[in-house]
Amino acid sequence: MKIDEIRRVDREVKSWLSESRKRVLTEMKSRLVVNTKTGRRDLVTNVDKANEHFLVDKIRSYDPGSKILGEEGLGDQVTSSKGQVWIVDPIDGTMNFVKQRNHFAIMIALYENGQGILGYIFDVMGNKLYSGGPDLGVFENDQKISMEKNYSLADGLIGLSGPMVLSNEYNVDEVSRKSLGMRIYGSAGIDIISVLKGELVGYISHLKPWDFGAGKILLETNGFKISSIDGQPLDMLSSTTVLLGTPNAHRDVLTIVSQ
Amino acid sequence: MKIDEIRRVDREVKSWLSESRKRVLTEMKSRLVVNTKTGRRDLVTNVDKANEHFLVDKIRSYDPGSKILGEEGLGDQVTSSKGQVWIVDPIDGTMNFVKQRNHFAIMIALYENGQGILGYIFDVMGNKLYSGGPDLGVFENDQKISMEKNYSLADGLIGLSGPMVLSNEYNVDEVSRKSLGMRIYGSAGIDIISVLKGELVGYISHLKPWDFGAGKILLETNGFKISSIDGQPLDMLSSTTVLLGTPNAHRDVLTIVSQ
Repeated sequence: MKIDEIRRVDREVKSWLSESRKRVLTEMKSRLVVNTKTGRRDLVTNVDKANEHFLVDKIRSYDPGSKILGEEGLGDQVTSSKGQVWIVDPIDGTMNFVKQRNHFAIMIALYENGQGILGYIFDVMGNKLYSGGPDLGVFENDQKISMEKNYSLADGLIGLSGPMVLSNEYNVDEVSRKSLGMRIYGSAGIDIISVLKGELVGYISHLKPWDFGAGKILLETNGFKISSIDGQPLDMLSSTTVLLGTPNAHRDVLTIVSQ
Repeated sequence: MKIDEIRRVDREVKSWLSESRKRVLTEMKSRLVVNTKTGRRDLVTNVDKANEHFLVDKIRSYDPGSKILGEEGLGDQVTSSKGQVWIVDPIDGTMNFVKQRNHFAIMIALYENGQGILGYIFDVMGNKLYSGGPDLGVFENDQKISMEKNYSLADGLIGLSGPMVLSNEYNVDEVSRKSLGMRIYGSAGIDIISVLKGELVGYISHLKPWDFGAGKILLETNGFKISSIDGQPLDMLSSTTVLLGTPNAHRDVLTIVSQ
C-alpha cells in the first residue's frame, strides 16, 4: 500500500475511532446487558456487539474488498491472510469494562498479505489513542513516541495474566521473581500500551488475534519483539500464548520459560 | 476536633497537596536519584525525601504540638496514638514512580487519639485527590462519592500484592480464584482508590501505617471494612497484612484465609 493511501486510511480509521469512543461512552450510561461466553470470566456486552457492528459497517463501506476478523463474529470467516485483512476488537478487557468502567481499549489493525500496515489501540477512559505502523511511526494522540530504552527483565516491571500466574504456566512465576515486580491489568490493549510507553518491559498472556493484531504492528514499528512464548513467529489467524517486550526482556523471558 | 477546625485543616492540607504535586511533577523532569532500602525492590528517591521534607515542614508550622509519622523518617518517633498524629507517605508506590512515572500517590492522614479525622490520597498523574473523613464525607476532587454497592468477592475484581500471590501467603491464590480476577497495581494508594471507586471489591497486602493511614479513614467513612488479614483491628503504629474491601468481600476473604 502506498504512503498516500496509508495516510488516507489512517485519517479515516481515526474518524471512526473518535465516533466509536463517543458511542461507547454514551452507551456506558445505560444499563449494560452482560452475557458470559466460555465461562463466568469471559464476558460480552451489548456495547461490545454494537461497537463491532459499527466498526465492521465502516470498514465494509470503506474497503469492500477486504476481509474482517472480529472478536464478536460479525466479520468474516477469515482462513487466509491474503489481501487486506482487518482485525477488530470492539472492547478489549470486557471484564474491566463491566466491573471497572475503566482500563479497556478499542483496537483495530490492518494487514496486507500478512504484513502489518496500521494498528490502533484506543484507551477509551484515558482518551489516548496509540496509532501508526511501519510507514508512519507510532503516535500517542498526535505525539510521536519511541522505545525509551532496551530494558532487561531484571530492570523493569512485567505484565502478566492472572490465570497463568496462579497455575505457574510456562514458569511465569520465575519470570516475575527475576523482574522488579509483576503487574496484572486485565486488558491486552492496556498492557501493550504500557509496554509501548515503557511502563512495563514486557507482557505474557494467552491471546487471540484481535488481542495482539494492532499491538504487533505498533510494537514492531518501535523495535519491540513479539512472538509466541516459545519464540516462534505469530500466526495472525491463531490464538496462542504471546510474549512481547523490549528485545532484552523478550530474550530474558525466553531463557526462563525454556528451562 | 470541631467541624469548623476540621474544615480549616482540610483547606490547609489541600493547599499543601496542590503545591506538593506541582513540586513532584517538576522534580520528575530531572534525573531521579534512586537508592534501595531493604532490597532491590524497596526504593527511595530524592523526590520521596524532598516531598516528605516539604510536607513535614508544613505540618510542623501549622500544628506544632502534633506528632508526625513519615515513611522516610523525617518526622518523629511516634510510640503512642495520643493527641494529634499525622501520617505522611510522600510517594506511595515508589517502584511505579521510578519505573512508570505513573500510578503512585501522595498520602496524608490526621488521627486524634487514635480516631481518624482526615485522610488524603492524591493520584498525582491522574490529578485526582481523594479526601475527607467521618465529618465531611469522601470526595474525588470536589465531587462527593459513596460506595457503589456491597459487592461480594465472587462478583468483583480483587487487588493483591505480587509477592503474596507468588508465595500463596494466606491462601490468596484461592481468594483470586473465587473472585472474577486479580489485579496487581503495585501501590497501596492506587489500590485503595480503586476500592473506593468500586473498581476493585477488595485489596490484600503487607502494609505499613503510612500505606493504610489515609485509606482507613476514607474507606471506613464510606462503609468499607479494613482490618488485619485475621480480622483484627489495625494498630495505627504497626505494620501488618491488611485486608480491606466492601463488607461482603471482606467477609468472603476472611472465610477463605482462615481455612
